[in-house]
Formats: sequence, C-alpha cells, structure tokens
Amino acid sequence: MAELTGNLLVAQSGGPTCAINASVAGVITEAGKHECIEEIYGGLNGILGILNEELIDLNDEKRKTIEGLKFTPAAALGTCRYKVDFKKKPEKAAKDMDRLFKVFEAHNIRYFFYAGGNDSQDTSHKIHEEAVKRGYDLRVIGVPKTIDNDLPFTDSCPGYGSVIKYAATTVMEVGFDVGSMATDDGSCCIIEVMGRSAGWIAAGTVLAKRGNPANPPHIILLPEIQYDIDEFLARVKSTIEAHKYCVVVVGEGIRNKQGEEIGADKSRLDAFGHPVLAGAAEKLKEFVQGKLNTKTRTVLLGYAQRAAAHFAAQIDIDNAFACGQAAVKAAVDGKSGYMVKIVRDNTRAILTGDGKIKWTTDLHPLAEVANVEHFVPRDWIQEDGFLPNETFVQYAAPLIEGEVKPPIEGGLPKYVTLDRNPVEKKLDAREA
Amino acid sequence: MAELTGNLLVAQSGGPTCAINASVAGVITEAGKHECIEEIYGGLNGILGILNEELIDLNDEKRKTIEGLKFTPAAALGTCRYKVDFKKKPEKAAKDMDRLFKVFEAHNIRYFFYAGGNDSQDTSHKIHEEAVKRGYDLRVIGVPKTIDNDLPFTDSCPGYGSVIKYAATTVMEVGFDVGSMATDDGSCCIIEVMGRSAGWIAAGTVLAKRGNPANPPHIILLPEIQYDIDEFLARVKSTIEAHKYCVVVVGEGIRNKQGEEIGADKSRLDAFGHPVLAGAAEKLKEFVQGKLNTKTRTVLLGYAQRAAAHFAAQIDIDNAFACGQAAVKAAVDGKSGYMVKIVRDNTRAILTGDGKIKWTTDLHPLAEVANVEHFVPRDWIQEDGFLPNETFVQYAAPLIEGEVKPPIEGGLPKYVTLDRNPVEKKLDAREA
Repeated sequence: MAELTGNLLVAQSGGPTCAINASVAGVITEAGKHECIEEIYGGLNGILGILNEELIDLNDEKRKTIEGLKFTPAAALGTCRYKVDFKKKPEKAAKDMDRLFKVFEAHNIRYFFYAGGNDSQDTSHKIHEEAVKRGYDLRVIGVPKTIDNDLPFTDSCPGYGSVIKYAATTVMEVGFDVGSMATDDGSCCIIEVMGRSAGWIAAGTVLAKRGNPANPPHIILLPEIQYDIDEFLARVKSTIEAHKYCVVVVGEGIRNKQGEEIGADKSRLDAFGHPVLAGAAEKLKEFVQGKLNTKTRTVLLGYAQRAAAHFAAQIDIDNAFACGQAAVKAAVDGKSGYMVKIVRDNTRAILTGDGKIKWTTDLHPLAEVANVEHFVPRDWIQEDGFLPNETFVQYAAPLIEGEVKPPIEGGLPKYVTLDRNPVEKKLDAREA
Repeated sequence: MAELTGNLLVAQSGGPTCAINASVAGVITEAGKHECIEEIYGGLNGILGILNEELIDLNDEKRKTIEGLKFTPAAALGTCRYKVDFKKKPEKAAKDMDRLFKVFEAHNIRYFFYAGGNDSQDTSHKIHEEAVKRGYDLRVIGVPKTIDNDLPFTDSCPGYGSVIKYAATTVMEVGFDVGSMATDDGSCCIIEVMGRSAGWIAAGTVLAKRGNPANPPHIILLPEIQYDIDEFLARVKSTIEAHKYCVVVVGEGIRNKQGEEIGADKSRLDAFGHPVLAGAAEKLKEFVQGKLNTKTRTVLLGYAQRAAAHFAAQIDIDNAFACGQAAVKAAVDGKSGYMVKIVRDNTRAILTGDGKIKWTTDLHPLAEVANVEHFVPRDWIQEDGFLPNETFVQYAAPLIEGEVKPPIEGGLPKYVTLDRNPVEKKLDAREA
C-alpha cells in the first residue's frame, strides 16, 4: 500500500462518555508519530460541524490539554446526533455527502476518524463506501464509543467500564443508605440507568453485590426481558421480608409482559426516530407504593452517569486511548472501512490465577458492524430474569479496574477544555 | 463537677450522610481515653431501637472497623425517623420516655450521644430535661448531622460539605456533557437536589462555576425564594441564547410566586408530618419543553447524593469526627444539654492569604437549637434570586476541601459494616 500523505480529521458523535476524549487523545498522540500525517484537525460537533466546515487545529492545542483529555468527560470537540440518513432522506443525504467531500478536498483530509456508537459507525461506513465510489483516496476508521456497550464484535465499548464502575458504586452507596433507614422509612429504592434496548449498564450494577446475594442490587430489570409486573412485585415483597429493604436497578427501556415499554412517552422522538424514555423508575414506584404500600424513592442518574469522570475506570480510559491509537496505525497501514475493536486475552489470567487480562485491539469491517445491536446474552442472565448470572460477572468485573484520578483544584476535579483555534474556511457557507 | 462513672450509649437518627459514621468513630475513639466511661454501647436504629433495648457492644468491634467508619456512608448503627412527640402524641411520648429511662437504668447509661438533625436535637433536649426532672444522672450531648445544613449556631453541619462536593462535581460533569451536545440535542438539563425548606445543597452547587459566569450551573432555584415561572423561563431562554445550553439546579422544595411548592404531592406525608416531595425538576421540565420547546432532561440525585462517600470531603469527615470527640469531652467534663457546634476561624486565612482555616468546636444549649431551622440568608443570594452570590461562595468553598479516599477492592469502594454483637437484654419486651 502506497503511503498516503495529507491531513487528519477526527470527530466525535452521539452521546458523550467519560472515555471518548481519551480516544481523541490516542488519535492525536499516534498521529504525531507519522510524517505522512501533516495537519491534525478536529471537526466540531461531529458530522454537523464538518458540514459547516467548522474545523479546529489540534496541533495548536497545548500538550497538557491533550493529556488532560484522558480524564475529561463529555466530548471536547462537541458532538451531535445528526445522521446522514440515506433511508429516510435520500436527497438530503446525497447533498450532505457531496458537501462532506468538498470539505475533505478543500482541506486535503486523507485520514478520517469518527468516534461513536452504532449510528456513527454506519456514518463512517457510508463515508468509506462513498470515497471508494468517488475514487477519493481516504482512509476511514471507526473508533468505538458507547456507554450502552451495544456495539457488536468488540469485547466492550470504551465508556462502558466507567459508567458501570460509577453506577455500581452508586448502587452500593444507596444500598448502605436505604439499608440503614429500613426500620421505619424508605425501604424500597429504584435506580434508573440508561439503556434504551440493551441492558448492559443495568446488568453491570450487579458488581455492587460483590458476590453476596444479600447485598444490593436485589433486582435488576433489563430491556432484553419482558417482565410480569406481579412477579416483580412478589420479588420486591420477598426481598423486603428477607432483608427489610429492596434496591432495584432498572434500564430505562424495560418492557412488560405485553412487550410495552413501561416508562415510554411515545409522543416524543429523538433525531433517530427512537422514543425518548424517562419514566421507568417512576412507573415502577407507583406499582410498589400502590400495590405493596411500601415507601419508595427513586434515583434518576441521567447524564450524570456517563459524565462521572471523577470515578472513571482506568482500564476503560486505557482501552479508549488504545482504540484511538490503533485507528491511526491501521489507517497509516493502508486500512479503511474498519472499526477498531477491543480484544480480551484471558490466557494469563486463567493460567496464573492473578486475574491480569491482556487487552489488545483488532479491526472489524464496518459493513458488518453498522447498525447491529449487541444485547446481553440470555444465558448471561438468571433463568428468572431478575439478575445477571456469574458468567456476566466474570465478563464485567475486569472492566471497572483502576481509578482515574483527575487533578483537583479547590476540592473539585479540574477538567480541560480545548482552545479550539479555527482552521480558516475555504468554502462558501453550506446551504441550509 | 464530680466524675460520673458508667456506660456510654451513642445512636444515629434521621437521614444518613457520608459523615455521620465519622462522628460515631469520634465518640468511640474519645470514649476509649476516659476511665469513667466503662462500656461503649451503640443503640440500633436510633431512639426506636433503644426503646426496644436493641443495644450493641462497640468495644467488641474491630479497631479497623471503627477506623473504616470514617469513610463509610449511611448510618452504621441504623437510623430512624421515629420521634418522641410530646406535642401531637403526649401520652405515647410520656410512655416512650419512661421506657427510655428504664433502658438507661438497666444498662447504667450515664453518657448519651445522639447524632442527628433538627428533630433529633429536639429529642436530645427532651431527654436531657427529663433526666434533670427525674434526678437521673445523665450527660446528654447532641452531635450535629444533616446534609441540609439547616441547624442553627454551627458554622456548618457534618455531611453538608461532602454532599455539595459531590453535587457540584456532578453539576460540572453534567455541564460538560450537555454543553458538548448543545448543537442539536438536549440543551437544557435540570438537576434536582435535596432540600425541603432550606436551599443549602442547591446553593452549594454554585461552586461548580469556579468563578466563571459562563460555567454551569446557570440557574439555581432555592426553596427560600418564591419564583415567577415566566421570569425563570425568560432566564432559561436568555442563557441558551448566550451559551447554547442551560443547566438548572433546583432544591426539591422550591415554590412559585403564590408560595405553592412546585413539585409537591401533598397527599403524602412523612413521619414528621412534612409533605414528601419529588417532582420539582419534572414539573420545571414540563414548563421548559412546553413553553420554550427546548429539549430537556432531568437528573434526580436522590439518596445517591447523601451517600456518595467515594468522593466525600476530607474536611467534612474531619469535622464530623471532631464533633464526636468534642461531645465526649464535654460530657466527661460535666456538661449536659448542649449540641456540639463547628466554629470557623478565618484569622490565619485572612492574615496570611493562604486560605487555611482553623476549625474548632464549641457547645450551644440544646434548648436554643431544637427545632430552629437555619436558612440561606437573603443577602447571600443575588438580588434576582437566581444564583447565590460571592458571600455564599466564600462560605461554602472551604467546606469541600480534600478528598477522602476509601480503600478499593475489585474497582469498588470497600466500606465497612459493624459486627453488631448484641448487649444482653435485661428488660421485658416493650409494649406495642
């Protein structure tokens, strides 16, 4: 493969995480090692900003700011949920694609890295195909990112380990709290976590049990299972009888026996056409209070869970950084149309019993990744559906290892922001 | 004052915090230094457990468990909201008081320490008065505790610093997240924190601004102020115009211009007769989405905020421990009927400019403390009511200094639990 000289563009897409900035830091750090990569640009707000030719010069950023990206939550480049949607809006999508390649040509972009989840990998795949079709020499590598952990083929998704480390810690702490109040107040607490159709985050809070069935969470409800409300209530009742209190974790998209989303407000849709859900815990609270007459409180972690960089998992950040580096290495090596994936090597852990896993990366064709959702396997969940089983615990436990320690100033984490020096625009403004 | 020899009883009351176990550790540690204190007992689940003669032997606990109380959230002894209520239920209260002194006599309790908030200080005061009336030689000292920070006379309440350190960090992190998504998704986020009638917690999140008016939180709504909803919406609108997003923090008990609690469900009351509130953020979200057509998400921290020991403030834990120690010292010194209070000495900080505050403790008569609520002073809040001012910042900033680092096992904090070896009962079971 002939060496390809030109500029690099990296952008972030979809919901932010604790780890997506570490992937960008990995891209920038690795890019600096290759002479074929001339300028290192960041696209603001994902595809949306690139369409508007809003590029910034990442070589202009301070070295310590790039280092700081490793512990800074959210998307330092900005992000978007905008989608180049060939299915629903083919004309607009074709126009967007034209504009995108005008921007690439204007700035001699030859390396494009897009960090995101399912929809973003689809976008990367389309851009790769389009480049091939147009005969425009471009290397496109998708960088995995999603707290939902629902990308296929990769062992896990950067961002996931940190969110379950934080969520499991929260469940443990709330468990201590509710348990100590259980005499005459608040004996049930329902904690709602993100997860529209895949229950990886809810499932991950099982780590808070630390192997003791008496420990919270006592019940975990996953979007993968359809629940009978009466069976759920019976489980809450028996838990309170046994332990005096009950901590329930619920993924936002859980469904009842009829397959209806329990907390769905179907009148509101997001940009991808998914219903915006927010009410699972509140709905279950109504049932528990109404039918069991048990005082119930809810916790809605919302955005806090995916931004909780003050207690991120070091292994998650390390893997996120490695994914960024691997993307650049693959592209320089001539690859395009792949997503980086994380690979877990248990050999040493099993042979020596020291639990040390060797983490590496590999590539997987974007064509196979795009828009495929990876769910919690049924045989990783107890038969009754109310808790993940030991197979899941073995999978999840290594993902929360290590504590990222952001610098502290005045008692609060000191996160970084990019200077965002703009790259001079060369095109006319995009037509609305 | 003649030396009083006998046993010690310590108990915890009301909502748990990150720091109330540190106060118990302070009591136990100090008690071990005084020969006049023979046995060190803990009362399970506050007054309720003492009435049931459920005492445990704290001298039987491992030394490292007592040390671990300093970083373990919730109430290790268990807690309750049960109140000896002479006003509403005088007959029951008189009967409870008889039973309480029977338990004290049966176990030769001569030192009683009760860690709690306003209601618990009232209970301590009544027990002190009753002891005097009965001529029963008992030293009663209240230990301050409440995340709400609404006890009078003390500089601050143990538990408060940690909750605002965590809540401000969360607001900062959510701010990074929402800010990076602001292009086309979720430009308003409303974070609800505890605070039924005093807005100290909500106000404390102002520290997340770190002096920059552009930083979140952009609006803080306090229960102390009555808000015009249209003025609030205008403020949200202008914030989004200026910064593309808006982070709002709201205390659960906030009220509208008519003085009505915005999120109140007045059909439900807690054991103290207060309405149980949970819906302020959701109500405001309806307004913002309905009237401004701005996509809005909520975060409901709930119990998570008061239990977040993984990011507690070291100064808070130190002060909580010191309060426990000071209570024992005062009692051994012959005092009874006082609450320990925290005193801030700014002299060195001002003289040298190094910001180092000298924290000490003092005593205040329980008669003056009981049932008095301390609110955020009006002149610590901006004139428009939408943010605390610099005076508040100067007050709150020193309270979040230092990071408690609990030991970690398998990626999660390793908190302690007491063995709870019971003290043999000497009385018949309490009449229901």
